Amino acid sequence: MTLFDPGSEGAPTERTTSEEAFLQALLDAEAGLTRAQSALGLAPAAAGDAVTAAAVAERFDARDLARRARGGGNPVIPLVADLTAAVSEASSQYGPYVHRGATSQDILDSALMLVAARTLNVIAGELADTERMLARIATDHRDTVLPGRTLTQHAVPTTFGLKAAGWRSLVLDARDRLRGVRAALPVQLGGAAGTLAAFGAYGSEDPVALMAAYARELGLSEPELPWHVLRTPVADLAGALAFTAGALGKIAADVLVLSRTEVGELAEGAGGGSSAMPHKANPVRSTLIAAAARRAPALAATLYASLPAEDERPAGAWHAEWTTLRELLRAVGGAARDASELVDGLVVRADVMRAHLSTTGGAIVSERLSAELAGVLGRGPAKELLASAARRAREEGVSLADVLAAEPALKDTGVDVAELTDPSRYTGAAGVLVDRALSRQ
Amino acid sequence: MTLFDPGSEGAPTERTTSEEAFLQALLDAEAGLTRAQSALGLAPAAAGDAVTAAAVAERFDARDLARRARGGGNPVIPLVADLTAAVSEASSQYGPYVHRGATSQDILDSALMLVAARTLNVIAGELADTERMLARIATDHRDTVLPGRTLTQHAVPTTFGLKAAGWRSLVLDARDRLRGVRAALPVQLGGAAGTLAAFGAYGSEDPVALMAAYARELGLSEPELPWHVLRTPVADLAGALAFTAGALGKIAADVLVLSRTEVGELAEGAGGGSSAMPHKANPVRSTLIAAAARRAPALAATLYASLPAEDERPAGAWHAEWTTLRELLRAVGGAARDASELVDGLVVRADVMRAHLSTTGGAIVSERLSAELAGVLGRGPAKELLASAARRAREEGVSLADVLAAEPALKDTGVDVAELTDPSRYTGAAGVLVDRALSRQ
Amino acid sequence: MTLFDPGSEGAPTERTTSEEAFLQALLDAEAGLTRAQSALGLAPAAAGDAVTAAAVAERFDARDLARRARGGGNPVIPLVADLTAAVSEASSQYGPYVHRGATSQDILDSALMLVAARTLNVIAGELADTERMLARIATDHRDTVLPGRTLTQHAVPTTFGLKAAGWRSLVLDARDRLRGVRAALPVQLGGAAGTLAAFGAYGSEDPVALMAAYARELGLSEPELPWHVLRTPVADLAGALAFTAGALGKIAADVLVLSRTEVGELAEGAGGGSSAMPHKANPVRSTLIAAAARRAPALAATLYASLPAEDERPAGAWHAEWTTLRELLRAVGGAARDASELVDGLVVRADVMRAHLSTTGGAIVSERLSAELAGVLGRGPAKELLASAARRAREEGVSLADVLAAEPALKDTGVDVAELTDPSRYTGAAGVLVDRALSRQ
Amino acid sequence: MTLFDPGSEGAPTERTTSEEAFLQALLDAEAGLTRAQSALGLAPAAAGDAVTAAAVAERFDARDLARRARGGGNPVIPLVADLTAAVSEASSQYGPYVHRGATSQDILDSALMLVAARTLNVIAGELADTERMLARIATDHRDTVLPGRTLTQHAVPTTFGLKAAGWRSLVLDARDRLRGVRAALPVQLGGAAGTLAAFGAYGSEDPVALMAAYARELGLSEPELPWHVLRTPVADLAGALAFTAGALGKIAADVLVLSRTEVGELAEGAGGGSSAMPHKANPVRSTLIAAAARRAPALAATLYASLPAEDERPAGAWHAEWTTLRELLRAVGGAARDASELVDGLVVRADVMRAHLSTTGGAIVSERLSAELAGVLGRGPAKELLASAARRAREEGVSLADVLAAEPALKDTGVDVAELTDPSRYTGAAGVLVDRALSRQ
Repeated sequence: MTLFDPGSEGAPTERTTSEEAFLQALLDAEAGLTRAQSALGLAPAAAGDAVTAAAVAERFDARDLARRARGGGNPVIPLVADLTAAVSEASSQYGPYVHRGATSQDILDSALMLVAARTLNVIAGELADTERMLARIATDHRDTVLPGRTLTQHAVPTTFGLKAAGWRSLVLDARDRLRGVRAALPVQLGGAAGTLAAFGAYGSEDPVALMAAYARELGLSEPELPWHVLRTPVADLAGALAFTAGALGKIAADVLVLSRTEVGELAEGAGGGSSAMPHKANPVRSTLIAAAARRAPALAATLYASLPAEDERPAGAWHAEWTTLRELLRAVGGAARDASELVDGLVVRADVMRAHLSTTGGAIVSERLSAELAGVLGRGPAKELLASAARRAREEGVSLADVLAAEPALKDTGVDVAELTDPSRYTGAAGVLVDRALSRQ
Repeated sequence: MTLFDPGSEGAPTERTTSEEAFLQALLDAEAGLTRAQSALGLAPAAAGDAVTAAAVAERFDARDLARRARGGGNPVIPLVADLTAAVSEASSQYGPYVHRGATSQDILDSALMLVAARTLNVIAGELADTERMLARIATDHRDTVLPGRTLTQHAVPTTFGLKAAGWRSLVLDARDRLRGVRAALPVQLGGAAGTLAAFGAYGSEDPVALMAAYARELGLSEPELPWHVLRTPVADLAGALAFTAGALGKIAADVLVLSRTEVGELAEGAGGGSSAMPHKANPVRSTLIAAAARRAPALAATLYASLPAEDERPAGAWHAEWTTLRELLRAVGGAARDASELVDGLVVRADVMRAHLSTTGGAIVSERLSAELAGVLGRGPAKELLASAARRAREEGVSLADVLAAEPALKDTGVDVAELTDPSRYTGAAGVLVDRALSRQ
Repeated sequence: MTLFDPGSEGAPTERTTSEEAFLQALLDAEAGLTRAQSALGLAPAAAGDAVTAAAVAERFDARDLARRARGGGNPVIPLVADLTAAVSEASSQYGPYVHRGATSQDILDSALMLVAARTLNVIAGELADTERMLARIATDHRDTVLPGRTLTQHAVPTTFGLKAAGWRSLVLDARDRLRGVRAALPVQLGGAAGTLAAFGAYGSEDPVALMAAYARELGLSEPELPWHVLRTPVADLAGALAFTAGALGKIAADVLVLSRTEVGELAEGAGGGSSAMPHKANPVRSTLIAAAARRAPALAATLYASLPAEDERPAGAWHAEWTTLRELLRAVGGAARDASELVDGLVVRADVMRAHLSTTGGAIVSERLSAELAGVLGRGPAKELLASAARRAREEGVSLADVLAAEPALKDTGVDVAELTDPSRYTGAAGVLVDRALSRQ
Repeated sequence: MTLFDPGSEGAPTERTTSEEAFLQALLDAEAGLTRAQSALGLAPAAAGDAVTAAAVAERFDARDLARRARGGGNPVIPLVADLTAAVSEASSQYGPYVHRGATSQDILDSALMLVAARTLNVIAGELADTERMLARIATDHRDTVLPGRTLTQHAVPTTFGLKAAGWRSLVLDARDRLRGVRAALPVQLGGAAGTLAAFGAYGSEDPVALMAAYARELGLSEPELPWHVLRTPVADLAGALAFTAGALGKIAADVLVLSRTEVGELAEGAGGGSSAMPHKANPVRSTLIAAAARRAPALAATLYASLPAEDERPAGAWHAEWTTLRELLRAVGGAARDASELVDGLVVRADVMRAHLSTTGGAIVSERLSAELAGVLGRGPAKELLASAARRAREEGVSLADVLAAEPALKDTGVDVAELTDPSRYTGAAGVLVDRALSRQ
């Protein structure tokens, strides 16, 4: 819950990134480790079950743990104490199997990966919904013509289908990047300095095997090496999440432009109200997505900057990741939810789009006229004729089409002025491109 | 409370930036506005009191407000409804004076400024403590000599007093920047689009006067103009907070280097423990400060990037500020608390510092020898003599001082080799610089 | 010169930040130091002149220096060799006074400050021009009414004068921040590890006095302490430059919105053309300013992140500053030039602005109607009447003013519907605010 | 060439990212487009050759082009004029085939991709060298034991082989990410607003086929859609380059720590000198890599922030990419070169590493002792015995091993104190992990 951040408020990912979710992930990481040791015969078979049974977040005092985390600078140290006590209370012989051989970072990193994995799973669902709806919009509006705009000015016509297909393509790009990162999210296991030595001291003859067993227990992947200071998974999360925020931000940027009062080609289905101005219907979903897209790159930068992690555990670079990754997951999770709502309710005003094709009085097809008349009249004469026609149209307040239709030089040239000046006939390969883009699954 | 962030956990600034604190600040902003209107005769005298009496955070359901904030994208809209209901319940005639003439942004921005002001007040206290302790350390160690290090290598001697005086100077720089920003934090008041028009519609003949009255009520400064889209106050906060994080980060960076196992010239008074390695005393306070210093610049960048706020209220740039500013305040607030604890407990091992002066076998004074022997022997001969002496010292494993003491070329030159090669006699103006720096208040 | 960056291309600040300018600044820093020593009697009086005479950039091979800078990681080491040779060639006895007692960082930092100072001087001029032109625009358009827009939607009327006055206020804020930073830009002088010890070894009895003398020679300020690792000046530059970029970016953001084809309330005087689309007049100056405003915050973040500079010279944090500061100076210098051009040529279409006041059919004054009719009819009835009137206006395609003029409930109430629904009569304190803002010098 | 940036100075990637390289890439992009049209019969067969023959950078005036780029905000507009003139001069009939149907962004983006591709090719070579050398180091030092360090403190032993294998693993991760991005770098082709319409106007019946032909000509990949405002390729470059900088930064961070005067376990082969302090051998390569790693994340953040590119060509987001991408390519290219030099010359002092294992008097194996003695004596008694032994060792200034060897409670327990307290026997799975990591190709 946060009054500061309506964008992430109430999203499913708010729950997967909550204090409680993190606490449960820390407990899951501890329990999974004991189970992995049980599975390999390094702990009694029942030890894993005993720790798992005790590892239930609501039985622990998160506030007190957070407070005690200050001493050593991480929450695992007090958590191990409390979890050991809880396990021992139920069955005293299994207490010693809690956290056996591990270091705090093994648990904390594994828990962060669990939090990330669970959050990415939710985001994947939101993106799938969004992608599906965008495919439908692109199909429905394959041939809906509107002005293409470059550097804020009408350029040449395009279609709303192509725009929506482009949005979808970015969503699929985000999906692919997140999917790749999600599949690779590894457990962390290295012991005090990444050599797995303590597991050997506790009897394991092949501590490396424990990495695989641990990965199986947590449903994460097995790393090549302990990655205490090889932060590829976190950097990859940073990149994929910043990408996703930006991809959704592109949709929001376009909706914000096209729903401006003067443009009105799009509207959010459920625009946000204003207490003072009852007529307003603000593009709130787009606004919140845009806000997330503004925050994500800097958060990702902090995570990338943690790659140069000195020694076997850095003093600061690692600690800077935790809340930064959380904020990034929340921002993107919120944006994914808002994007799904935005696309679901999007109002497309094809008539307004069409009407805007004539805003420039025909100049929107001037590129085509340059090209085609040059073929008929020659490059120089065509240019001159167009310049003078444009001037006349502007001065007389009529359309370029009307001026050209009356142009003697075009008589008997076979030039079909009506066709040439119809913006809806100048959408190039837009339809083909939409089809091509929609064929991507 | 947060398990993700031991750095801000439990700091006083955690409270000034909590959900509850923000809710109270929003309520204070509403109540202050009604009081200001009462003060100017734009509302009944009792209306301000009535709203103030109702504006108590614990009577409101923050969770429900956060949920309803989604609709319009900010928490003020539902808050106005609930506050109006609460006021009306107590005295029905005063309900209409809640939020009269204001826009959501007036309240939200004013509340953010209150949160910032209250947080900066706390930080100012922490910095004052830290500065005072650093002054004492610099005084105590004015003449404690240790190796100056550049690009990780021993260079020439310096003093720990000069280092501590430098830290203090940065803390004072931070104090000055925060103080300037704090004093200028303004109320926000502009109405729907920054013209104050609604206040006129509700009867004010001089709505500009309301800005000053509002500022008086909230204890903030009066802005030159409504700053809905003139985000100087937020950008200035960004800069001063990023500066503060970096200034404290410098202290942490030095402590981390000097408390390395091989260096051991400093130690944190209460180093953090490790469950697996009972001997460890980790520099945890420095680590957490370093983490904050890694996060702050990117958060500040997001705030600077919100300056280009289009129109009379931007769709995204404003919304990106809220949680970013909060995170930045929390990070710096936590670091200020940790810096105070760090400095308070800092263990300075003057003997270890002194011992390290001979680590390079005398090379640490080679700059001095170059300079002074050149004056005696001439530049060329001095250089040759030093190079050969250094080679012999290295090869024979003796100190440069011993080699030079036996050097025939220096006989009868009046050169006092013992003095020249004593690192503690080569600290230049360090003492004078410490005195100079400490004279700054 | 750069094809990559039309924003900084050709700006006066391109010259102040060029390789040649930096080389000259390095030479100026060396020459100033010798002159300062001459001034204090630590070097022959003629030594300063001799070094100054030799310290002319075009006599040095910048390319070769850059290549040789690789060895020690900074360009001062080879430069000292070449400058010493050049001085010695002219007058062999003065060669030894080059760089005497200094460390590379003294020269490099002082040179960076010279480059920054010279660039800030240019930017100050650009901002002064811009500010002056904006004052004129704000005066001319003090009462030019246009729709205020929030979250992309028409909200209530405002004036273009208020918008321009706000832009000017940001430019003045930038000016003030840059001015403060400029005045404080210090020389760097500390010697190998910040103790000034080598100056003592070369005979100075009061090396601290050399800092003041050096500052006088370079026209920079005298620092409290050597700031090799107390990077306040660089961080302050970062903040003030990021602020300036953002302040100018706000102007650009507004021009980009208001010059959209559908809005057309503003146009750049000399819009950029397009080879393919002869009708286009792109807002190029705004676009380039917007690009600079997007780059500056991240560059500033890198500089803030260099504050935690370990030891007496950090291994990386310092080196990361050089090209980053240069890029930031160039980006802001280019934006300041473009802003001046933009404002100079800005076309304001007051008629288009006025016409847009009726785009929403009167809804733009609904806030006023709510307020004023509530005073006449009571809050509830007024709300109902307005809602039904708005519905009728929408359904019948007429203006709210027409509906209300025919409304029986308003007969004989003394309500002047024509006045109440005239957007140009609902600009609140806009005019007063413009006057107030313009009184700031 | 740049005096500001010794890190990128002289690297091969300086050439691939130079003004000249970019100009040539722009020309290549133009020529490739005409050739593609020739190949598809849309232009005379000889037109492609004619444009290619003229498209030679040194025949163009880059400075003048840069100056004229200001007008339209990009260098393609003047370049098309000059290239057309050059082609026409040679064979007037082919001039019209220059840039036919294209928009500036098609050429500029394609050129940026060429610059990126050429730069990535160079970086790939540097990384391959680095990886190979690291494999050799990891092999050679598979069993070289040194203290593992966490939060700056000795923790438990590790091996230098494992450290080097970890570095190599990061280099391979960087290689893989860059390789994936490199393979996907696409040509840009969309025409004025991404519909390819002008190609149709010039006679193409299947303009989409032109994308594939263009990709073949430039050796880039074929995009799914014109990506004028679908900036996946740039964002992917950002992520992969920031990753690479960070990966190399990790190596640098470790070398910087381990080559500190007090640690001395590593040294750069050719340390940088100092004019004032002849004894210094600075880790300059590491320093410059660290500087690049500090700059890259913020540059990447700017690129990620350009994803939300409004309309069919954004006003600012696109322009912010150009110089930012160039700086990022240069920074990483320089770091890749420096990393290769660093690793090539790295001096590993295995004897110093070994000596440091006893710095903590045996505490470095306390984790092992805790684990193994608990198995013999029980958890509680083992803990007590260790605590008292550690206290005695500290107080008497002897090693923990000696205290334990004399400990009566361990007599006849079969505990081999000498083996247990030998740090070189407590490296866990380090060797196996090295082997495992080295098996990755």
